[in-house]
Amino acid sequence: MNAKSLPFTKGHGTQNDFVLVPDPHGTLDLTAEQVRFLADRRAGIGGDGVIRVVPTALAIDEDVRDQVSQARWFMDYRNADGSPAEICGNGTRVFAAYLRREGLEEGDRFAIATRSGVRTVTLTTDGFAVDLGGWRVVDPTGARRRGFDATVRPHGGPELPALRMDLGNPHTVVVLPPDIALEDLDLSRAPEVSPPPPEGTNVEFVRAVGPGHIAMRVHERGVGETRSCGTGAAAAALAVRWWEGEVDDDLDAASLDAASWTVDVPGGRLTVTALAGQRVELAGPAVLVADGTVTLY
Amino acid sequence: MNAKSLPFTKGHGTQNDFVLVPDPHGTLDLTAEQVRFLADRRAGIGGDGVIRVVPTALAIDEDVRDQVSQARWFMDYRNADGSPAEICGNGTRVFAAYLRREGLEEGDRFAIATRSGVRTVTLTTDGFAVDLGGWRVVDPTGARRRGFDATVRPHGGPELPALRMDLGNPHTVVVLPPDIALEDLDLSRAPEVSPPPPEGTNVEFVRAVGPGHIAMRVHERGVGETRSCGTGAAAAALAVRWWEGEVDDDLDAASLDAASWTVDVPGGRLTVTALAGQRVELAGPAVLVADGTVTLY
Repeated sequence: MNAKSLPFTKGHGTQNDFVLVPDPHGTLDLTAEQVRFLADRRAGIGGDGVIRVVPTALAIDEDVRDQVSQARWFMDYRNADGSPAEICGNGTRVFAAYLRREGLEEGDRFAIATRSGVRTVTLTTDGFAVDLGGWRVVDPTGARRRGFDATVRPHGGPELPALRMDLGNPHTVVVLPPDIALEDLDLSRAPEVSPPPPEGTNVEFVRAVGPGHIAMRVHERGVGETRSCGTGAAAAALAVRWWEGEVDDDLDAASLDAASWTVDVPGGRLTVTALAGQRVELAGPAVLVADGTVTLY
Repeated sequence: MNAKSLPFTKGHGTQNDFVLVPDPHGTLDLTAEQVRFLADRRAGIGGDGVIRVVPTALAIDEDVRDQVSQARWFMDYRNADGSPAEICGNGTRVFAAYLRREGLEEGDRFAIATRSGVRTVTLTTDGFAVDLGGWRVVDPTGARRRGFDATVRPHGGPELPALRMDLGNPHTVVVLPPDIALEDLDLSRAPEVSPPPPEGTNVEFVRAVGPGHIAMRVHERGVGETRSCGTGAAAAALAVRWWEGEVDDDLDAASLDAASWTVDVPGGRLTVTALAGQRVELAGPAVLVADGTVTLY
């Protein structure tokens, strides 16, 4: 049993939290078991995910190394179960805050390498804005015709109309009827979604707060309810706008450009902005809570 | 807003986990809000409780300072909600491991000051043994006559006979019938206890594993299911022995002295030993996982 002392930083974005481990020489080959230990909230440090901070040039994956001309640092994101993941909107802000604080990036706008390709981050007053990439309504013709293309039944509640969205990962968005309060939803169990998506789906329950302002709770596939989901906040804002009908007739969503929404999640407040080319940006806080060393076995 | 950089250590005993903060000069006046932040698993560090490590002579409470001739260090234990607590069996082992590692105590056996009085700890091969103090069956005459003095109904399950135990905090112990598997219990909601204890109760569900060996799960009052409860493990072992009838007729439990049980909890393995004078000792691992600094506001 070889004990290894490893520096770490713990941070969160709207209470979506992460353990960051620096690997400046690309020599840290974290096993799935070590990732699970770091993410374990009782036996380890605790986090929704683990992020290795490694130079893009030293990434194992060739598709990532190819991003080196645009992005110096690779966000090697792993889920709490140890599996590699493509991207995490809230995690990207925390990663960016770490690079800035450590002096690894000095500009107010820089690029990050991810398994989903290069992501550009921009410093804001309370954190960072991140380009999440493209989005689409899964069944735009059907949704346009009927307004909805799925149903969701929260545990113990009624069947509600919903809209499926694709933001690189699958989402199903529901606007709550006036007689169901957001805080009364039972999300301790997964909502039933119909038609059942073969790859699973995150489900967002949305309530209007005011013009350009919504509140939501989210049930993440394979996880349960979380305090925040970045792509879920974007899906919710874009779905609401879709229902409002403010897209042009040939469904290319060009009229959404530069529209912006405030999205309240249980862990804080996010801002979602539609960008040109049917892309979407997520902005919000990034907090670096603690730094230390942990012993790995 | 004054930022304060605070050193901390994170540790656990059978996955009952704690944030320890050293306060060698007795100057760290942690507010309830700061304790809640340190214990917050997503916005802070995360733990079931927070332990300030302070010289007994510098304790605010006179009852604690009076212990200074026996114990050099005071375990200032706070619950995750910020409230002060008397004692925590698993936490005491982690506190002892910290004192030893830091060279604040050098012996293999030393005393610790707590709000419940002095506790003696003894180094073991994998952790520490802690004298938990006295224990009693709440209604010994009634329990002796009927075997049980309460009932417990786990969520979605049948009503089961139970025994109430007092280990400084209240416990209700249930032995599962053969047709209910420990792992199938639904402890996501509090079990119903009858008669309802006015001050609430921890509930232990017990399964025999072999001679002197039990497994249990616990629902802690005000918390929910946890991965370990030290006093709960002791209550479970002592209740099983009580049912086995190996106590003498005048109920002073003297025949239990030096009897020992292995208790498996979801977070690991504990050893419970009955001591002379109707006291009980808890032994088990203590792990110091990480050290670092955290920023308090």
